[in-house]
Amino acid sequence: MAQCTVYGPAYSTYTRSVLLTLEEKGVPYTLEHVDLFDGSNKGAAHLARQPFGKVPAFEHGDIALYEAVPIMFYIDGAFGGPSLQPADVVERARMLQVISIINGYAYSAWITNILFPRVVTPMLGGACDEEQIKSALPLAQCSVKALNDIVDGHKFCAGDTLSLADLHLAPVYDYLSRTPDGEALLQDAPNLTRWWAHMRERPSVVKTSPKLG
Amino acid sequence: MAQCTVYGPAYSTYTRSVLLTLEEKGVPYTLEHVDLFDGSNKGAAHLARQPFGKVPAFEHGDIALYEAVPIMFYIDGAFGGPSLQPADVVERARMLQVISIINGYAYSAWITNILFPRVVTPMLGGACDEEQIKSALPLAQCSVKALNDIVDGHKFCAGDTLSLADLHLAPVYDYLSRTPDGEALLQDAPNLTRWWAHMRERPSVVKTSPKLG
Repeated sequence: MAQCTVYGPAYSTYTRSVLLTLEEKGVPYTLEHVDLFDGSNKGAAHLARQPFGKVPAFEHGDIALYEAVPIMFYIDGAFGGPSLQPADVVERARMLQVISIINGYAYSAWITNILFPRVVTPMLGGACDEEQIKSALPLAQCSVKALNDIVDGHKFCAGDTLSLADLHLAPVYDYLSRTPDGEALLQDAPNLTRWWAHMRERPSVVKTSPKLG
Repeated sequence: MAQCTVYGPAYSTYTRSVLLTLEEKGVPYTLEHVDLFDGSNKGAAHLARQPFGKVPAFEHGDIALYEAVPIMFYIDGAFGGPSLQPADVVERARMLQVISIINGYAYSAWITNILFPRVVTPMLGGACDEEQIKSALPLAQCSVKALNDIVDGHKFCAGDTLSLADLHLAPVYDYLSRTPDGEALLQDAPNLTRWWAHMRERPSVVKTSPKLG
């Protein structure tokens, strides 16, 4: 059977969402590391897979895809194991809404403008830009509230079964929750913290947990 | 039967993608104008529908959604008419990949950084920022090439039948093609220009065509 190969670094949230999908489906895979800090993502080999120089990229036999969301949907549709898309049309829309909120708002606020200045830049020897974090807090907070509202009354993001929305949210939530800024924001998000309390125990989430610093 | 209401301005590309979906499915709807230039999108009435102050938002009976992609998938799943999602798992992934390329790269390059400075700002009495456009050209060109490669050999974005990818691409492509910068970029995109030559004739595309200026 054709192998699945994921190209990207284990510390990338979008790469981790794809790994989580493979783990939850029980699909074996190889992770080929493509580093974002040494310029490998802008090298010719990776640009041939992903013309924008981003991660992840994915191959399964002669199927080649890039961008996390289409890769996740492909894996869910192409392999057996539990379905990661709700059958109900409203729950499917909620799943896609959570994914859109992450890609459109939460990622930039939580990762680019909180995790990077607070954790990544200092790890690389730079100074934390407090202004960058402060400017991002309203959008970060709005994203927390919007997602907390959607999870209200459900075990998972899009209803009572695990879906791709949970696997897209887990990596960004995990990083946000490791910052003091995120800890403060999440104090007002009881539904999300309850969701994370059981998500973080899943074998897929434990197995793909990235080390920072 | 419950009415469909779309909240947003007809000139917004994301709003137009939702209107195109409704038109292609043959679903009646009401468009409630929410203006992006007079601050209506940041007013309390709209923030109750869309907490980030963006467009579109959508209601169908007691179902309330925001963000174009989940709304489009909801409409396709909730109503009869032609399916706008391919049955084949690879074609579905291509559909989602096109949508991801638009949301992740093409929209900012084509709309925020070409259409706005070239057309919208001058319409409002300001000066065109040529540097802004120049800086955006590499990403704009990479997006054109990536989408042109995906359409290669097919009538539509995700195969030989119309899908949500075409309805997501049409509004941003339409605006790009109306700028001299876009005209130049699209000279190297024969698959996309062939695609647009038939897309632009569709009644849904003609009916929702926004006037600029």
